[in-house]
Amino acid sequence: MKKASRRQFIQQTAMTTTGLLITYPTRLFSQTNQTGMSSNIKSKGYAGTNKLGKLQLWNFERRPLGDHDILIDIKYSGICHSDIHTIKGHWGPQQYPQVPGHEIAGIVTAVGKNVTKFKVGDKAGVGCMVNSCMQCESCRKGEEHHCETTGMTGTYGSPENSSPSGITQGGYSSNIVVTEHFVIKIPESMELKFAAPLLCAGITTYSPLMRVGMKKGDKIGVVGIGGLGHLAIKLAVSKGAEVYAFTTSESKLDDIRSFGAKEAIVVKDADDLKPWFGKLDFMISTVPYTYDMSNYISCVKPYGYFTQVGQPINGELTINNFNMIFNRVNFNGSLIGGIPETQEVMDYCAKNKIYPQVQIIKAEEINDAWQQVVDKKARYRFVIDTATI
Amino acid sequence: MKKASRRQFIQQTAMTTTGLLITYPTRLFSQTNQTGMSSNIKSKGYAGTNKLGKLQLWNFERRPLGDHDILIDIKYSGICHSDIHTIKGHWGPQQYPQVPGHEIAGIVTAVGKNVTKFKVGDKAGVGCMVNSCMQCESCRKGEEHHCETTGMTGTYGSPENSSPSGITQGGYSSNIVVTEHFVIKIPESMELKFAAPLLCAGITTYSPLMRVGMKKGDKIGVVGIGGLGHLAIKLAVSKGAEVYAFTTSESKLDDIRSFGAKEAIVVKDADDLKPWFGKLDFMISTVPYTYDMSNYISCVKPYGYFTQVGQPINGELTINNFNMIFNRVNFNGSLIGGIPETQEVMDYCAKNKIYPQVQIIKAEEINDAWQQVVDKKARYRFVIDTATI
Repeated sequence: MKKASRRQFIQQTAMTTTGLLITYPTRLFSQTNQTGMSSNIKSKGYAGTNKLGKLQLWNFERRPLGDHDILIDIKYSGICHSDIHTIKGHWGPQQYPQVPGHEIAGIVTAVGKNVTKFKVGDKAGVGCMVNSCMQCESCRKGEEHHCETTGMTGTYGSPENSSPSGITQGGYSSNIVVTEHFVIKIPESMELKFAAPLLCAGITTYSPLMRVGMKKGDKIGVVGIGGLGHLAIKLAVSKGAEVYAFTTSESKLDDIRSFGAKEAIVVKDADDLKPWFGKLDFMISTVPYTYDMSNYISCVKPYGYFTQVGQPINGELTINNFNMIFNRVNFNGSLIGGIPETQEVMDYCAKNKIYPQVQIIKAEEINDAWQQVVDKKARYRFVIDTATI
Repeated sequence: MKKASRRQFIQQTAMTTTGLLITYPTRLFSQTNQTGMSSNIKSKGYAGTNKLGKLQLWNFERRPLGDHDILIDIKYSGICHSDIHTIKGHWGPQQYPQVPGHEIAGIVTAVGKNVTKFKVGDKAGVGCMVNSCMQCESCRKGEEHHCETTGMTGTYGSPENSSPSGITQGGYSSNIVVTEHFVIKIPESMELKFAAPLLCAGITTYSPLMRVGMKKGDKIGVVGIGGLGHLAIKLAVSKGAEVYAFTTSESKLDDIRSFGAKEAIVVKDADDLKPWFGKLDFMISTVPYTYDMSNYISCVKPYGYFTQVGQPINGELTINNFNMIFNRVNFNGSLIGGIPETQEVMDYCAKNKIYPQVQIIKAEEINDAWQQVVDKKARYRFVIDTATI
């Protein structure tokens, strides 16, 4: 997912809403009375300690279990390109040590006394956020990621009074304490290793595909076939769309067809895109770096939409308005999805047997996996077996 | 208007359509048999001779009057920032001498034998294009500016076989020969000096305002209050919108209010925009240079639209996708409008007495006026009295 640090998020919120409260108020759930477990909970994880981005084992503590909290024994944690961008400071300065990871799947091992949605032994998942104000209009309508007052609390790196380290710590770790509203139910039929990537890569691609009203037979373009892109293909194919996948990696062509794409297009330069100009109903780009975006945008039919979910360094992309006045495409961005929609994509994938293609790794392989993600060598989502931490 | 040279346009067309014909075919109307006037028509105008952009008097010739052509004795010609960008080569290399001007108003002095829409003595106007294939889907539905085969022929600087100089020559001149389909009828009640700016500045702002479905009470933002922006204000106000005008020129505040804007906001830095984040239903930007666009975009409500009609050098603008994922605004560009819609805005302005604020100048003042446009000193549209050429 395209996670901003807490600091960045607040800045963003300041830039998009009014009546803004730029403080960190006591949250609705996380600060309530304790149930049973009144002391901090020991955890261990892989943390970045500086912007060089080499992770190392770190023993740390989670907050005590609150009345609305759930303690999850993490089994699998996906590796998202956003983890790398964040820890390396590409999106703004960070507090360290910081444990990344916002594709978290595990088993509930304790629940606060007011918890109603989960019981011990349930499969449970956590995505890109762990709190929000829960009172503003966005929160009330299930768009917690667009919380208008405090902004969402990201799963890692966000300031959090209740956290012993002062910031939230993510899923490359043995356990996590999260208020129940922000925990996703994982259906019994869904294996945890497949559930994890759905919590960022899945929702981030599912949400804009749903928003655009994709229907059977629509021609959907997907740019960048990595963790997000390969799920975008599978999701769109499952809805009956004709999917056209654009990649710079020739070695991915067979995989792309196996995901159900109608065509896989290798893009070496802008000329490779010309046959597609004006052809697609909708296009989603997962590319997390600056790239020659304008020519991709022109592949969309006039008055169609192009959604950029990948976040480059500092978020900056160049758009060419000569192209835009002629192609008449609407450009927008999209940020994950709310909790109800995240539950929806989880249930949808379970029901329709849509599973990410994962590579399970040990904790000691994380740093190598990160390099492979940067080198476009992931096939297609590295998932950490957290028992190895 | 945001005119591209013919060469640029062809490149753009190549990038947005398929089945492309990158040649200059014989046009439907302009190459037909001659009526009466079988020899070239003498004209004189102010032409750029190189990219330094100093215009000088030039005697040249127009093509003979074709059967579908109209000869217009030009009375007034507006100065558009696009004229400056084009002649200075900001949007690509140009052929010289080149007479700019695509806000042309005058009197019909001769008509070809097959002309039905005009008679000698009629008021007539020419905007940003003078031809297109007239056979493709876009042309058939009155979106000639999006012609899918040859692309539109711009009013100046576009290759044109029938033109003695090899390219179209624009309105800073004494007369012009145009095929009747591309000539706009100017109602009797509309003074020619006011009609001229409607043919680019008017249609360029009117078209996106109409496309977005603007309705009474909508909060409309206008960025950049020059020739286009001041008309955007007047047009939106006339439709019952609440208009919020953003300018960097404090000296324009009284004028802006006189145009009917509800508020005039002076923007010195990004902080001045924060109170407006998420407040406006729609925003149109006429700024013709690179500027800090992202913060303006964030002034639009989630899921609203921001349309950029101003064209910076090379068309390049930076968009920040952190902003875009949080503000959820749709960004697009818009290019003038088709001939039917240009006629519509002309008729609408005549009926509703919407007149641009013009400064009439003599031909010898053109170069000075251009500098004033660049220096943001135009109030608000320079219009050349072409009798002084």
